[in-house]
Amino acid sequence: MYVPYSTQMTINQLLAEIKKEASKIENQMRSDLIELRPVIDDFLAEILEFGLFNGGKRLRPLLVVVASRLCGSSDEGIYRLACAFEYLHAATLFHDDIIDNSDIRRGKPTVNRKFGTTAAILAGDFLHAYAMSSVGRFSGKEGLRVFCEATTGMVDGEFMQLRNSENHNLSELDYHDVIMGKTGLLISAACAIGAIYGGGSSERVLALQTYGENLGCAFQIIDDLLDYQGDSAKTGKPVGNDLLEGKMTLPLIITLNKAADSDKKDILTVLADGKNREKFVTEIYQLIEKYNGFNLARGKAEEAVATACSALQVFNGKATFFERELLEGLANYVLIREK
Amino acid sequence: MYVPYSTQMTINQLLAEIKKEASKIENQMRSDLIELRPVIDDFLAEILEFGLFNGGKRLRPLLVVVASRLCGSSDEGIYRLACAFEYLHAATLFHDDIIDNSDIRRGKPTVNRKFGTTAAILAGDFLHAYAMSSVGRFSGKEGLRVFCEATTGMVDGEFMQLRNSENHNLSELDYHDVIMGKTGLLISAACAIGAIYGGGSSERVLALQTYGENLGCAFQIIDDLLDYQGDSAKTGKPVGNDLLEGKMTLPLIITLNKAADSDKKDILTVLADGKNREKFVTEIYQLIEKYNGFNLARGKAEEAVATACSALQVFNGKATFFERELLEGLANYVLIREK
Repeated sequence: MYVPYSTQMTINQLLAEIKKEASKIENQMRSDLIELRPVIDDFLAEILEFGLFNGGKRLRPLLVVVASRLCGSSDEGIYRLACAFEYLHAATLFHDDIIDNSDIRRGKPTVNRKFGTTAAILAGDFLHAYAMSSVGRFSGKEGLRVFCEATTGMVDGEFMQLRNSENHNLSELDYHDVIMGKTGLLISAACAIGAIYGGGSSERVLALQTYGENLGCAFQIIDDLLDYQGDSAKTGKPVGNDLLEGKMTLPLIITLNKAADSDKKDILTVLADGKNREKFVTEIYQLIEKYNGFNLARGKAEEAVATACSALQVFNGKATFFERELLEGLANYVLIREK
Repeated sequence: MYVPYSTQMTINQLLAEIKKEASKIENQMRSDLIELRPVIDDFLAEILEFGLFNGGKRLRPLLVVVASRLCGSSDEGIYRLACAFEYLHAATLFHDDIIDNSDIRRGKPTVNRKFGTTAAILAGDFLHAYAMSSVGRFSGKEGLRVFCEATTGMVDGEFMQLRNSENHNLSELDYHDVIMGKTGLLISAACAIGAIYGGGSSERVLALQTYGENLGCAFQIIDDLLDYQGDSAKTGKPVGNDLLEGKMTLPLIITLNKAADSDKKDILTVLADGKNREKFVTEIYQLIEKYNGFNLARGKAEEAVATACSALQVFNGKATFFERELLEGLANYVLIREK
């Protein structure tokens, strides 16, 4: 297995650093809102205030900032660009919560629940356009291209998921495409655009893009594992939800690929019958255990983290030792997070 | 009243020219879809095919093309940029049809009706991002700024409308802001970006922007008048719909501003009672006639058309005589259209 570059940074130091940066990012977001207030409708301003400040970790903007520093830039203007990723992320959450008919996010009502579907559609559209406009303003044509590609790719990924919602024969490759669209593309774009802003060479931009893709995939695999194995008191979500909804994630896909014909048939029969899935939850868990589906899925996340960290090897200067350690720490933290 | 620059172009010539350009624009849209097909999900491609080709006049891309020519450019690459306006327009229609719960558009089922709300939200998001990406690709930073400002302004206008949906005391100024957001901003941005692409001086960009704003406003005022006075066989919409929904448009706003206290009170009483509006439709029509609300509203549209055409006076060269005549013809056509 991959040996981390350094073990000098403790988890507490990592979390403190993330918190410190999140607070700088939120300051920028507050400034943006103050700038917007006089020119936007009061109702829209109220929704943005509510929907944008919800205790998020601000992971995507953080990556933009750290990537730019890793490429040697100390320009504090990066925060304005970085926030665009939080705006786009929020826009997709506003719309996703309509699509999934979700009432709660991070312990608060969702925007659609609190303000209605119309407001949630429009506020998402506003943030979408505002994010693009920030990227256009603070980044070059290349940055905008990467950002737009990530955005269209994300939506495209949701279509694939929509089209496959009743398909229980998803391959590992299909799953990889889905999680890339859902999580990998935007995280990877954050890393790439930070690197471009920081004046990184194309080799360095690519390295950070690779880091981001793999970080995003590892993050999503663990997220899907937590859905099976998490402590709902910590994750805030009911356990086994994906299975009950017939959503195909990695532990189940791996199991189906490995299972003997009779086991495979049993699993597919349970999945095909939406109403009776609940009765067979224990059986499915046992079958996943039988074929080692949970551990193998975790192994894929570990591989992705290893690939992410390896990509950072091009950054071997002393001056950016801290930033590299931060990104490695973050990637490894993904594997141990419990929520 | 304003005397047109030229009367050499007949309405039939104007319509033929619009049709010719619409066909070139649709060719470009088809090429874009062919380019997209291999990289997007089949279901998304199907929705785009359905939602983008519906017999629209392609007014916004047409304005981009003509504005660029009026500024002296003959670059055929303008069509790629021009289509972005149709994509953004379609994106807003997909989302508007969800918001208004509309089933029919141009005699066909709406995207949400045919493919469901989720697909309509996502396809709108895709086109939104794709439009931004085209503008970023084929236009400079300034063009992107204008485009994003129009987009955020449009959404902001919808919020104003949403917040004011139960406010029957709208002023003419409020109405102007609403129709600018709804129609004026995007049309004006189309003209400005065409001019920027065509290398127009800032004076010329501003002139076309003014033309666009006023064309858009005139278009929307007439649209709102047709809701009261149109022939539903021609417009394809039920007559008096806005009134039944309590939507405040210019004829009614003007009437309320001019009406004696007792008439004003009667109108507001009818508006306040959603369920009983239908019974008093004839009375409200008579009150609007009494205060000349329809003619005065039409007068505002005529004023806007005159302002639009006056703005074109900076284009006095022989080489662009045809383009100027086309834009003037289009503005005047808005006043006589019946659907």
